[in-house]
This record gives sequence, C-alpha cells and structure tokens, in this order.
Amino acid sequence: MPHIKLPEGLPGIRGAMAFRPETAKPLNELVEVLLCGPSTLTPGERELIATYVSYLNDCHYCQSCHGAIAAAHLDGDEALVKQVKADFQHAAVSEKLKALLVIAGKVQRGGKNVAPEDVAAARSQGATDLEIHDTVLIAAAFCMYNRYVDGLGTAQPQDEALYRERGKQVAREGYISVSKTYLPAEAFAR
Amino acid sequence: MPHIKLPEGLPGIRGAMAFRPETAKPLNELVEVLLCGPSTLTPGERELIATYVSYLNDCHYCQSCHGAIAAAHLDGDEALVKQVKADFQHAAVSEKLKALLVIAGKVQRGGKNVAPEDVAAARSQGATDLEIHDTVLIAAAFCMYNRYVDGLGTAQPQDEALYRERGKQVAREGYISVSKTYLPAEAFAR
Repeated sequence: MPHIKLPEGLPGIRGAMAFRPETAKPLNELVEVLLCGPSTLTPGERELIATYVSYLNDCHYCQSCHGAIAAAHLDGDEALVKQVKADFQHAAVSEKLKALLVIAGKVQRGGKNVAPEDVAAARSQGATDLEIHDTVLIAAAFCMYNRYVDGLGTAQPQDEALYRERGKQVAREGYISVSKTYLPAEAFAR
Repeated sequence: MPHIKLPEGLPGIRGAMAFRPETAKPLNELVEVLLCGPSTLTPGERELIATYVSYLNDCHYCQSCHGAIAAAHLDGDEALVKQVKADFQHAAVSEKLKALLVIAGKVQRGGKNVAPEDVAAARSQGATDLEIHDTVLIAAAFCMYNRYVDGLGTAQPQDEALYRERGKQVAREGYISVSKTYLPAEAFAR
C-alpha cells in the first residue's frame, strides 16, 4: 500500500507522477533528455547505466522497467541486462561502458567516491567529458527516481511480462510520449 | 579540480548546468516547483529539508547554498539552520516539520526506510498527502543534486559570505530567474 493516496492502476513512478503533474513535468523531461536525447552513448548503454544504479538501490520497479527498456534497445537480450547487474566486468559490453559503470556505481554510493583515476580510466577507453557528465547525472538522477518510487511505497508489480511490454513501448516512443497516455495536460504544458 | 572541463568561475552546480544546458532546464524547473512553487509548506521549511538532506549527504556546496537560502527566508536566522542540521528534534521548528525531517532523513538513506509509522506520525501533526509527497521528492531530488555536484568534483568555495549573498538573491527572485544571469538560452527554451 502506498504511503499516500495515489491514483489507482498506475504502478511505480506513474502513480506518483499522476498525483503531482507539476513535478512530473521536469522529472519526465530530465529522463527524456538523459536517456533518449542526442548522445554518443547509445540508448541501450544509457538504459544499462540506469538499470545498474536502480539495481544497486534495490528498486524493483525501476530496475525492472529500465532493464526491460534496455533489453528492448539491445535486440531483446535480457541475459545481457542480468549479467550487467550481476557482474558487468564480465558482460559483453564495451570497455568504455564498463569504465562508465564503475563511475555510476561510485556515484550511487555518494558523489565523493568518484576518484580522478576512475575518470582517467574512462577517458583512456575513449569516454568524452560529455559522456562522463551524463553518466554522473544518470546515476545521480536514478538515486532520486529510485528513492521517489520506494519512499512513497508505490505499487510495484512482480509480473515481468508487464515490464517487457512497456519496455518495448518506451524504447520505441520515448518517455514523454508514453506519459501522455496517462498523465494530465499540466505535466506537459509550459 | 573538477573531473571534467567545466566553465570557469561558476562554482558547484552552476558550472555543471552551464556545461549542459539541456539537462539544466529540467533540473532548474524541478527545484523551482519544489522549493518556490505554491505549497502549504513555507519556502523556509522546504529549504530546511533540502539543507538537512544535503548535510546528510555531506555536500558542502548544496548545504551552504540552501542553508543560506533557508536563512534568508527565516529572517536571517543562521543559528536555526545550523541547529536543524545538528539536531532538528531540539530546534525551534514545528512538530510537523520535525516529522517531515524524519521522513527526509530516511529517504536519504534509501526510500525503503520510510515506514508507515513515520508517515502516520507526520499525519498526526497535520501533514497532508501533498506535503508528505513533496518531502519525499525534495529529499530524493537532493540525493541527486548532491551526487551531481560532488560526483563531478565541482568547485565549492569555502567563503560563507558568498553563499549568504546568493542565498538572499535566490530567496528574493527564485532559482530560474537567478539562473538566467549565467546560463545560456537553451536552459530555458521549451
């Protein structure tokens, strides 16, 4: 049971965003820019960073949701998503992404944990300043989204098929577009 | 030294936002809605929640900045801000705010820490669902802002007078208005 009265039938962050469209607007815009906007990191790579951080924060809804979106971007490779969560150093991802996941994991524990060596390691694998910036902000942002979803005690379905379906839709259409199917107009108006 | 090349002369989150105006836009809008928008919590109360969470996350820039804004809203009472950080249960704030600060502190450690009893305690002091929602989201959002500021190794001045000056300006004009003095137009365009 959620800690406050949230609109029914909308699990996870969706209920919270429907409850407060004024804050849903920037929350949606932030995730859209970070995960779907123009970037030299692929949408799949960015979703893997979001999934990994949500896994570290033990947020069932967010790791399931973004894990499913990541898989949808990666030709349905759910095993790869699981492997990144369990042990990304042995996953079939680039060395650059591994170095960025190290940074993301440190941000999850607290921003001060990021060491110059971590950044140097990412750079030596070809990461740009913008990619390092976005990795830090994706990790930080999911420390917010995860706490928002869990801190309100939102409904978090266990059925994987549900996340898979939505994952495909978000991968295809983006966050804001999908949100328009259930959020009121204030969540999009200027 | 910041981990990436940020614009000079802009400490803390300001340099990071100038580096990436596309993400600065929702970051600024979120803090504006949460801390300056219409609310039954006063701006001073909301800034105290932000300051307390930033203190728990040990983010010097954010706790100094928002502590100064809080003080500006509270007739310059810097001692009260310090007391809230050190031991809010014995600070001269309302019982409702104390109950909300308990929730904020739990969100800072992880959303799952918020217990039904914490929410019931806040409600028994008159907190509404919207106030509880906003407390959870303010706490969650500052777990992001703090990690963003520290995770990039941004410059964080030690001079308290600097924060005091800016604190008064933000308390008077709001976040977006002040940001317009140093961020490019993309950070505000639709």
